[in-house]
Amino acid sequence: MINWKNLDTLDAYQTMKNVKPVNLAEAMSGENGAERVKNYSVPMAEGLAYNYAAKAVDEDVLGALVQLADEAQLADKFEALYNGAVINTGEKRLVLHHLTRGQLGTNVMADGVNKRDFYVEQQERIAAFADKVHAGEIANEAGEKFTTVVQIGIGGSDLGPRAMYIALENWAKKNGCFKMEAKFISNVDPDDASAVLASIDVAHSLFILVSKSGTTLETLTNESFVKDALRKEGLDPAKHMIAVTSKTSPLAKSDDYIEAFYMDDYIGGRYSSTSAVGGAVLSLAFGPNVFADFLKGAAAEDQLAKEADPMKNPDMLDALIGVYERNVLGYGATAVLPYSQALSRFPAHLQQLDMESNGKSVNRFGEPVSYPTGPVIFGEPGTNGQHSFYQLLHQGTDITPLQFVGFRHSQIGNDVTIEGTTSQQKLCANVAAQIVAFACGKPDENLNKNFKGGRPSSIIIGDELNPASLGALLAHFENKVMFQGFCWNLNSFDQEGVQLGKVLAKRVLAHDTDGALKVYSDLLNI
Amino acid sequence: MINWKNLDTLDAYQTMKNVKPVNLAEAMSGENGAERVKNYSVPMAEGLAYNYAAKAVDEDVLGALVQLADEAQLADKFEALYNGAVINTGEKRLVLHHLTRGQLGTNVMADGVNKRDFYVEQQERIAAFADKVHAGEIANEAGEKFTTVVQIGIGGSDLGPRAMYIALENWAKKNGCFKMEAKFISNVDPDDASAVLASIDVAHSLFILVSKSGTTLETLTNESFVKDALRKEGLDPAKHMIAVTSKTSPLAKSDDYIEAFYMDDYIGGRYSSTSAVGGAVLSLAFGPNVFADFLKGAAAEDQLAKEADPMKNPDMLDALIGVYERNVLGYGATAVLPYSQALSRFPAHLQQLDMESNGKSVNRFGEPVSYPTGPVIFGEPGTNGQHSFYQLLHQGTDITPLQFVGFRHSQIGNDVTIEGTTSQQKLCANVAAQIVAFACGKPDENLNKNFKGGRPSSIIIGDELNPASLGALLAHFENKVMFQGFCWNLNSFDQEGVQLGKVLAKRVLAHDTDGALKVYSDLLNI
Repeated sequence: MINWKNLDTLDAYQTMKNVKPVNLAEAMSGENGAERVKNYSVPMAEGLAYNYAAKAVDEDVLGALVQLADEAQLADKFEALYNGAVINTGEKRLVLHHLTRGQLGTNVMADGVNKRDFYVEQQERIAAFADKVHAGEIANEAGEKFTTVVQIGIGGSDLGPRAMYIALENWAKKNGCFKMEAKFISNVDPDDASAVLASIDVAHSLFILVSKSGTTLETLTNESFVKDALRKEGLDPAKHMIAVTSKTSPLAKSDDYIEAFYMDDYIGGRYSSTSAVGGAVLSLAFGPNVFADFLKGAAAEDQLAKEADPMKNPDMLDALIGVYERNVLGYGATAVLPYSQALSRFPAHLQQLDMESNGKSVNRFGEPVSYPTGPVIFGEPGTNGQHSFYQLLHQGTDITPLQFVGFRHSQIGNDVTIEGTTSQQKLCANVAAQIVAFACGKPDENLNKNFKGGRPSSIIIGDELNPASLGALLAHFENKVMFQGFCWNLNSFDQEGVQLGKVLAKRVLAHDTDGALKVYSDLLNI
Repeated sequence: MINWKNLDTLDAYQTMKNVKPVNLAEAMSGENGAERVKNYSVPMAEGLAYNYAAKAVDEDVLGALVQLADEAQLADKFEALYNGAVINTGEKRLVLHHLTRGQLGTNVMADGVNKRDFYVEQQERIAAFADKVHAGEIANEAGEKFTTVVQIGIGGSDLGPRAMYIALENWAKKNGCFKMEAKFISNVDPDDASAVLASIDVAHSLFILVSKSGTTLETLTNESFVKDALRKEGLDPAKHMIAVTSKTSPLAKSDDYIEAFYMDDYIGGRYSSTSAVGGAVLSLAFGPNVFADFLKGAAAEDQLAKEADPMKNPDMLDALIGVYERNVLGYGATAVLPYSQALSRFPAHLQQLDMESNGKSVNRFGEPVSYPTGPVIFGEPGTNGQHSFYQLLHQGTDITPLQFVGFRHSQIGNDVTIEGTTSQQKLCANVAAQIVAFACGKPDENLNKNFKGGRPSSIIIGDELNPASLGALLAHFENKVMFQGFCWNLNSFDQEGVQLGKVLAKRVLAHDTDGALKVYSDLLNI
């Protein structure tokens, strides 16, 4: 029997609050610190590991978090989710993104079909289509191969797929599976579509229109933009476009597209990178096998997330530590800091994933909660960030928990040795150094040069960023956000907060405004 | 006589705290709201305007802020700064980035020269050099024109110039002044340099090595990376590289570079976009006249920043409202949300500018302060952000103040009309709608769809993003950060918080570690 309770009604909440806070600088010093780094680690899938030694936790805090996991029934709730319960209470929908990459539990039937079969079918249809495009069997009007794929979508149809593409682009080139360059058009700003169109060979480009509902304003507008550009070149838009949409959308059976691939209402936009939304563009760019490996990594991480003991479940433990930092230590933001240039847009994807899922003030029953929920998420790759905003992270007045990611090997493998070490070694040395600098600090009589330490971080360490480890990394954060939503008793799968702006924007465009909105409209010459 | 006092010792601080908070949702409703939008606006340079109607201020709050500006002697401190006082107390340096774009006060002599003349001389030397490159008088070994310019630098030598380049790239193409494509190598991750080098025609590329000290690890490492690549193509690196550095650096008189251009210790990295650091790459990419217009816009905004009355000084007023939000309302982060795809990396630059300047816990005398200083800064362009993290901004448990930027016209001018409106109109309608949605909210019986409002924002509105308005926009934020540093009694111009990580990274690379640091090093195979 699952009970959905607010965090502050749980006994574990009081336990957490009453545990003595950890002196992180002290805990991470000397041999005790060395032991922590060795022991405070949980294996993830695909050779990754979640190391939380530099978090402000100890056996007592972890004990409280184990109690919380149990009392909040995190494992039971995840099981209910992947077995098809209506977890998205606001929109009364199932939440099935895990099924896009594996069968975690019982069969889930919805819309009269087995949903796992449905997602596999879409993946296979995309794979067959991509193979034909790569073989030149599906080609442009002149019978020439498509060389570029352009995704038209916004939000979850853009950030996730774009971040994954950038993460794997160099790996694919290095490993001989780079098939087509991908570009992305998202913003309704006309300069976005104009600039992308000016940068590509339109005649050899295949466009993917991605919209679940088939009604997203930005996406349909940019589709028209692209169709105009195709027609200006004397090309037939219907020969250059495919759609990724739901079966019930107006795009699903349209002659405007070479082919349509399907997602459904049980895949939230921000959870759609492993569905057809990510599948089409990634399979076209890198081939279906790369996409399949990416799904394999995500599925392997999902399997680990089923474990009820958080000490063996890296996704759940990361979630619980985050709740402790937010609700007991009172921290308002989290920085995501991948030491990998390939992950340059991964923080922007996590920003959506986390902030859109858990940036809410009411629980899953629509009742106000009286504790902080999702934090602000931001980040840039290291070492770049070190020369930018790390000053505030080290010496600012507020403490921001940090999430590092690092890999032992680079993707391309070209390197240079300066002063006896490679760039990859320098990169890794920097992330190791930062963790210890943040945790331990360093006293200095000149307070301007003093580092208090006590600034918590975790790191996910892997061998190499490749399709499988990227899938595991993505699933880790999806599952972390899900578990945090369970702790906070939120519905992490709707986004009512985006609606009011849409309604008001329509009124502005219809000139149906008064008061402040009318004056702003006038100032902007609308 | 200037007094440097902590914020909490000022009478104005108590006044601010005692003023009745504004009910923003109420203030922005109806005709009162319309009047606010008309009146709560201060002209900026180059046709921009700073509109603060949707900030939680009224005549009483503004009165307190005027008192604060006066008591904290903001105008006097700025005057001392541009007239050459040692404002950077930690490093005992002048702060002269304003002189890179104009003569604001008396002549400033340092290092035996008139510094304004020195900066102008560098600008002119760069202009002459760029003209020769564009004319083919300075060419590669084969006598062929350079077609690409690649900046090698990190932090302030990367983020600002990169953001400015992206901001003007489409404008320059549209207006016939696009001379050379620019690329940027920053991260010590070897995949960063590898990927950029693979994307360019090395034989026709001119590289700019940017390092004030000439000792930045990442930059020197990437220089070697590039030199190796040049040699592998049988090219002479000394024929493909210029340097931007200080006159005292080892790079200044080296035969390794075609030419060296100079900055100095009085220009902080994050304030260097208007110096030779931005000047070389922007003049090469777009021509010296575009860079001159950019400086003109920045200088015009600086002139406005001299005004002692904050109600007529947009940079000072923005700063003061931010202090009120941070120290009275208690908000921990600020989101920067430009409704312009061209400003896609502008938030990342502001993140460095703000967080590295004011993310500090000690005052300019090295004494601890007992109030919050610089906030976390993050952001992405609209409308993209609307489909991502705006959910938390609208309905999250914490309030995040917002800084919008919008332009009446796009840069490229291509557009498409859908449902009777252009994309540019849709873009502007969205930013207008968001401001009102955040401020006013909208009650709903279903609390999941309820918008409380009361979420403050300001907007900078302009006609078009071009070199001059971009310069004004940049200077606005530089001056805002400076004024906030004055209010908080910080030294906004050093960055001691980045040092400890550097020291520890060197120890890791020298295998001179123990405890936690040694175990992390082992885990990362260093």
